[in-house]
Amino acid sequence: MASVSESIDDVAKLLDRKASVKGDEGKHKFVLKTPKGTRDYNPKQMAIRERVFNTIINCFKRHGAETIDTPVFELKETLTGKYGEDSKLIYDLKDQGGELLSLRYDLTVPFARYLAMNKITNIKRYHIAKVYRRDNPAMTRGRYREFYQCDFDIAGQYDAMIPDAECLKIVHEILSELQLGDFLIKVNDRRILDGMFAVCGVPDSKFRTICSSVDKLDKTPWQDVKNEMVGEKGLLPEVADRIGEYVQKNGGLEMIEQLLQDPNLSQNKLSLEGLGDMKTLFEYLTLFGVTSQISFDLSLARGLDYYTGVIYEAILTQDQKESQVQQQNDHNEEALSVGSVAGGGRYDGLVGMFDPKGRKVPCVGVSIGIERIFSIMEQKAESSDEKIRTTNTQVLVAAAQKKLLEERLKLISELWNAGIKAEMLYKKNPKLLNQLQYCEETGIPLVAIIGEQELKDGVVKLRVVATREEVDVSRLELVEEIKKRTSAC
Amino acid sequence: MASVSESIDDVAKLLDRKASVKGDEGKHKFVLKTPKGTRDYNPKQMAIRERVFNTIINCFKRHGAETIDTPVFELKETLTGKYGEDSKLIYDLKDQGGELLSLRYDLTVPFARYLAMNKITNIKRYHIAKVYRRDNPAMTRGRYREFYQCDFDIAGQYDAMIPDAECLKIVHEILSELQLGDFLIKVNDRRILDGMFAVCGVPDSKFRTICSSVDKLDKTPWQDVKNEMVGEKGLLPEVADRIGEYVQKNGGLEMIEQLLQDPNLSQNKLSLEGLGDMKTLFEYLTLFGVTSQISFDLSLARGLDYYTGVIYEAILTQDQKESQVQQQNDHNEEALSVGSVAGGGRYDGLVGMFDPKGRKVPCVGVSIGIERIFSIMEQKAESSDEKIRTTNTQVLVAAAQKKLLEERLKLISELWNAGIKAEMLYKKNPKLLNQLQYCEETGIPLVAIIGEQELKDGVVKLRVVATREEVDVSRLELVEEIKKRTSAC
Repeated sequence: MASVSESIDDVAKLLDRKASVKGDEGKHKFVLKTPKGTRDYNPKQMAIRERVFNTIINCFKRHGAETIDTPVFELKETLTGKYGEDSKLIYDLKDQGGELLSLRYDLTVPFARYLAMNKITNIKRYHIAKVYRRDNPAMTRGRYREFYQCDFDIAGQYDAMIPDAECLKIVHEILSELQLGDFLIKVNDRRILDGMFAVCGVPDSKFRTICSSVDKLDKTPWQDVKNEMVGEKGLLPEVADRIGEYVQKNGGLEMIEQLLQDPNLSQNKLSLEGLGDMKTLFEYLTLFGVTSQISFDLSLARGLDYYTGVIYEAILTQDQKESQVQQQNDHNEEALSVGSVAGGGRYDGLVGMFDPKGRKVPCVGVSIGIERIFSIMEQKAESSDEKIRTTNTQVLVAAAQKKLLEERLKLISELWNAGIKAEMLYKKNPKLLNQLQYCEETGIPLVAIIGEQELKDGVVKLRVVATREEVDVSRLELVEEIKKRTSAC
Repeated sequence: MASVSESIDDVAKLLDRKASVKGDEGKHKFVLKTPKGTRDYNPKQMAIRERVFNTIINCFKRHGAETIDTPVFELKETLTGKYGEDSKLIYDLKDQGGELLSLRYDLTVPFARYLAMNKITNIKRYHIAKVYRRDNPAMTRGRYREFYQCDFDIAGQYDAMIPDAECLKIVHEILSELQLGDFLIKVNDRRILDGMFAVCGVPDSKFRTICSSVDKLDKTPWQDVKNEMVGEKGLLPEVADRIGEYVQKNGGLEMIEQLLQDPNLSQNKLSLEGLGDMKTLFEYLTLFGVTSQISFDLSLARGLDYYTGVIYEAILTQDQKESQVQQQNDHNEEALSVGSVAGGGRYDGLVGMFDPKGRKVPCVGVSIGIERIFSIMEQKAESSDEKIRTTNTQVLVAAAQKKLLEERLKLISELWNAGIKAEMLYKKNPKLLNQLQYCEETGIPLVAIIGEQELKDGVVKLRVVATREEVDVSRLELVEEIKKRTSAC
């Protein structure tokens, strides 16, 4: 059979490969690991993950979002030309015949493809799923290659800055509710950046590459960024200096007013448009009561090619202390800055790239950098000694004597059928002590104990694990009694 | 820059490829589709999916399960040698340097790898995630190549058949709660099958391949299966006939007793063991009250290599009428039978294959064939005219006159901050009619209308969309009033 010999071939190749690297000792030995840059989530991590997801999903739903899902891989050409220099980080699938496929790099491009394919011109949707990036591990230690994105986007032709303001309100709500400490949301506009480059004298052809230099300002001092612009990218030093003056500015409405008066910027159509919208945005954000955590910052220059208008990024300003967190989790969303926990912006041209007739659907969205948030929450949980339960079991069905397996099975079946979360030990004759210990370990609050006497009397002994209090409950009232005592489970 | 030229190379290669297939016309044209065998989920499908998942997850949690997650890809060698003939259906990633990777084919092998890697000897966990199979589309039309599995497994050295019985109870609970109509759970045991093959005279070396022939009996008449055994696989006709007599048997406890008396089977150690356990299993299932939907069936022979003991599969016995459903969704779990909606079994050797010292961790589990269930639910929803809401929005914030955008933003912000699910139209001056229409379309039950008079009076006009009833509510009591009127949302 072809298939068997094929897989034997595969094994043989694999062994060859290993032998050539390690010599004979590698043969037949499994490497017991997850692929580089990925990890498993254990039950405790999953419990934390569930909590964080619930907070985020509740916020998205509070804002009336629907949800969609797309395949984990796309046609390779769907992703081509959307990510600029980052395209080299896309995972491709092996050509096993048929279509050429790649793993999704973010959720935004699949969303745009979905809109164009289904001719959808209006939608407010969230999408929570994993994305894949072959980050160079030598350069970016500790970054995940598989990580979650939590995206919220509003597509449609609407009046200026109303959906944009809502996206920022959402970031503000989520970061506040998760109680991650102080945060700051930086806001800028691609048009202001491009206008600024133009008035500073950057040649058109260098906008994108200079943009990606500016993008480094959150982690790199101005002097180094300037050196890159001049040395590597061939900008005149005086042009770089002019950029330097702008990108060190940040503030609120008063700074927007001031830039609107700037003799150079105000002459540029693009930046004038961007500044006008920025003013509107800040007026709406004032009505939302969130401006104290939002800063208009000319140094913000998110790297992705597809942004066309407002862009933003949220950072935690409180020292998270643990450098481990910083190293492992600076990989949220666009992996821009060490402390970044959310980012997004407006991309009015992306859907049009997929539409056969180039019809545009304006979009604005935000992506929550969930991996870093998970890590912070995990650390918090660990340092607070809070015991995280990984199950919600309300009651353990236990036996006081031997030979009661059948009775335990009957009782637990009754409880399951009544919707009670119940467990029992998978032993014929477990010791009572072991059964009680299991409850202590796993945090099960109640034990329903049956013994010969209880069976005769038609009762169950209900024990509260924390207090060791025991009470006989009639079999008929057991379900209600358990529900009453565990209403929080 | 290397990256840019690389991606230009990629594009060039792609265009070459397309040109060679289609000629020049294909150039620069996007193929707007998802990869073959995959699909997007739209908001309505997602709403149904969420309901089904909630039912299943609630059941898993009722049985005290924790949850874990693993990466979507594994080292290629992790999957090698686990799936027998099906290995050819594994998706490999392109070798872009570094490790050789493959997309997971199921959740069971990653689970076993997880247990061995973390030296876990006891766990009861569920895992809901997508798996990937390059099914040959010419042979298996309409099957998904990306599909969900919902797995529940119990790992640990326990007394015989107690966890196995719980897995079957779980299948029974889920299929009952989902109200998919009548169903039947077929049960068999790998040891009974192997013993049966031995006593019928099948050579040891042909057990696996004959097993996969038997596996076809749910879709193929005995005569065709026999022809395959004799013609393709070289079995003697009289051996095949002996198999034929056994595999046409099914029943309950009485059949198990009868087979325990079978002069041939009872002489075989393996089948005797299997039959003994099957008897115990049926005793436990009787205590659970589920035997009327469970049948011991000697023709059940699930294909995967890793099963070592009890195996089972649930089918819907009620005609689902729509052949479309049958075509599109016979792809759950192991894609065995047209009507299969759940399957699983015991695999005591799999974890040991990953452990450097071969230490075994006995496991038993079940996988719910969720894709087919989704389709049935979708069809039900469509035919019942039930309107499925894709959002939970409680109230639309609307304006009765123009120039009230600021007031709407202020009010909606108050509502969001109070946890109310609220939307507004993203227009500066939307018409009241359009705002009301939006509620009709999306099922939003309430409208909070502000006008100049209401602002003066410190009230909001709350309109019930269904009845058109309107009532003025004081601004201070608005949140409570909305909560009261939408407690079901």
